[in-house]
Amino acid sequence: MAAGYWMAGKSQESATFELFVRRLPPRRDFLVVCGLSQAIDYLTELRFERREIDYLKSLGQFTNAPKGFWDYLAEFRFSGDVFAVPEGTVMFAREPLMRLRAPLIEGQIPETYLLSTLGFQTVIASKAARILKAAGGRDVVEFGSRRAHAPEAGCLAGRAAYVAGCVGTSNVEAGIRFAVPVFGTSAHSWVLSFASEMEAFRKLQELLGERSVQLIDTYDTIEGARHAIEAGQPLWGVRLDSGDLMKLSREVRALLDAAGMQAVKIMATNDLDEDTIAALVSGGAPIDVFGVGTSLATSFDAPAVSAVYKLVEIEGRHASKRSEGKQTLPGAKQVYRFADRDVVGLHGENVGGEPLLKQVVASGQAIVDEKNLTRIREYARGQIAVYGSARKVELSASLSALAAS
Amino acid sequence: MAAGYWMAGKSQESATFELFVRRLPPRRDFLVVCGLSQAIDYLTELRFERREIDYLKSLGQFTNAPKGFWDYLAEFRFSGDVFAVPEGTVMFAREPLMRLRAPLIEGQIPETYLLSTLGFQTVIASKAARILKAAGGRDVVEFGSRRAHAPEAGCLAGRAAYVAGCVGTSNVEAGIRFAVPVFGTSAHSWVLSFASEMEAFRKLQELLGERSVQLIDTYDTIEGARHAIEAGQPLWGVRLDSGDLMKLSREVRALLDAAGMQAVKIMATNDLDEDTIAALVSGGAPIDVFGVGTSLATSFDAPAVSAVYKLVEIEGRHASKRSEGKQTLPGAKQVYRFADRDVVGLHGENVGGEPLLKQVVASGQAIVDEKNLTRIREYARGQIAVYGSARKVELSASLSALAAS
Repeated sequence: MAAGYWMAGKSQESATFELFVRRLPPRRDFLVVCGLSQAIDYLTELRFERREIDYLKSLGQFTNAPKGFWDYLAEFRFSGDVFAVPEGTVMFAREPLMRLRAPLIEGQIPETYLLSTLGFQTVIASKAARILKAAGGRDVVEFGSRRAHAPEAGCLAGRAAYVAGCVGTSNVEAGIRFAVPVFGTSAHSWVLSFASEMEAFRKLQELLGERSVQLIDTYDTIEGARHAIEAGQPLWGVRLDSGDLMKLSREVRALLDAAGMQAVKIMATNDLDEDTIAALVSGGAPIDVFGVGTSLATSFDAPAVSAVYKLVEIEGRHASKRSEGKQTLPGAKQVYRFADRDVVGLHGENVGGEPLLKQVVASGQAIVDEKNLTRIREYARGQIAVYGSARKVELSASLSALAAS
Repeated sequence: MAAGYWMAGKSQESATFELFVRRLPPRRDFLVVCGLSQAIDYLTELRFERREIDYLKSLGQFTNAPKGFWDYLAEFRFSGDVFAVPEGTVMFAREPLMRLRAPLIEGQIPETYLLSTLGFQTVIASKAARILKAAGGRDVVEFGSRRAHAPEAGCLAGRAAYVAGCVGTSNVEAGIRFAVPVFGTSAHSWVLSFASEMEAFRKLQELLGERSVQLIDTYDTIEGARHAIEAGQPLWGVRLDSGDLMKLSREVRALLDAAGMQAVKIMATNDLDEDTIAALVSGGAPIDVFGVGTSLATSFDAPAVSAVYKLVEIEGRHASKRSEGKQTLPGAKQVYRFADRDVVGLHGENVGGEPLLKQVVASGQAIVDEKNLTRIREYARGQIAVYGSARKVELSASLSALAAS
């Protein structure tokens, strides 16, 4: 398409694209937008390397593409403006999360990358918000890297889960790249590698001291709890990873308390998801920390949202597709937030409320690029607390009229 | 755990780890193993950079880790042996897909990366096999990068889908890195950017010639088909992306045929999955090519498999966890394939059948590392044709006895 725009003499036409989610997946009332920082990095750093251009030239699809196009790609820079909602903003279906105004060719090229980058982290942050709600204030750690969709996704899932309010991740790369707090416990192979569970527990304490978390279910959870108690302090907590977590957490808590170890915490893992966590919490299971893996790092019950990226204006002309069941709204839009509802209106329209999309890139330069995850997370938690439930989204009268025209 | 092994003087103990899938997800009868090449690259190239070591040192967890451990990490090389089934092999639950024999510390460190790398591509290849079966011999192109779990996952999904038999992907990076054939069509923004659909179609033909695929549903599919016919040759095909694909494909086929354009193909997209494709195929929809996105690139209905990585031997001693519902089988194992069943037995055991795990890394050096995707794909297609259905998996008598001991 880029080559086609170039050949048709349209590449520099002024275009506006918007990224939005068509509809929320089942059981999702809202989205926690995440991934903007990676999207900005991509737009401001996007270049075509010689080897990439050579590859494209080698394809039959580009037989008719003229030399000028390849020269253009070699010099490509994104020079447009980008408006977006800050990371951590709670948003809803049909609301633009990002808007790009750029020469047509520059607005088109980033489509897939932006959708994947913003879409994936938004999926994970939104899922994390649901799991945290189920956990009712107890700590949740993201533990799913091993099931993530390749290692890069594991790292970004750790980031997104933290933004939404998890206390951290087991993904060390997320710690290095994004300063997400990292947590972990020993695995069964640690216990199995020693001749006895007792020896394994004592050696862990030599390394980790008061941060030790003993995994007590390798052979038998109750026996494991007794061994952890016998190994004694220092001990931060014990971890349950199999069996009836309600029953076992109560029994283990009683054993710990009887041994005077009231301060020792209980962590639970084992394919937990929002429903199992909600049942444990409402049943009063004495679990202090949930480690959540697959269901969080893949958003197992809804691993994608219907995020799309659509042309809404070209050379001042409004554009919208009319495809059956997939109509889009024309025009450069803004989302105006009121206490009780959101209104999707036109950019610059005066309908009151707080405009949510803010300019983050001007003429290809990042002008807002929040990298501090602690601040992003603080903002996200506030957003989820205030707006994290189903919400009425209306179209402004002007937008409705335009869409009907 | 690595630091703990080092401190406990156990880091060089001889260990064997195995990677397997506990159980198949619903609706999956078999796995198509994929991602071995990336796993071998990781193992043979794994190093700890100074900045990574400095980060680890900065963590409270490592306050007690001695200098010798950090020096060890700085010099880390994987020196072990790896046995694995070739990429594209059809495998089943509880069968080891990979086995590592290495000093304990070297076998432990790669756990998460290997699970994510092999697990993800195996999930996608296995899903692709189901979609291809539903398509009943018609071509399927992987089109899901925009919904993949970050851009890297999109590229690897394209690779895995191709291995399982898709004709290609829309992910250009997969073309560059893995020589996967790349396909694409114009999007709605192409059509919308022109003053008329006719002009958009004609301009596309100037660029793509006989490779042109006209997307005909931007305004109205039947009108779009008429415009494509009017624009005429060269034309490879038309693409439907909304509405009743059964009805529309028939009507569009009739229009094309009536215009003497019998050779022009019909491609269909629009949130297709195996059930919708099977219904279209069994209903005789004249669709030549399916473009499948979200359901394939995220394996939407089952975005993860329960792949785990377990210690099975340490210093010649067999190891297995007994955790409730999550017991593992001890000992270094091999999978022996017979015409009618697989037998999981001990490595080196003589039970007949074809041993499926082959050595791919010896003393840290790759000795088998197939990079040619055409060959891998050919092998995978043969595997799926012969073994791609539910299968009986037994344990050998020796393994059963060992597990019970």
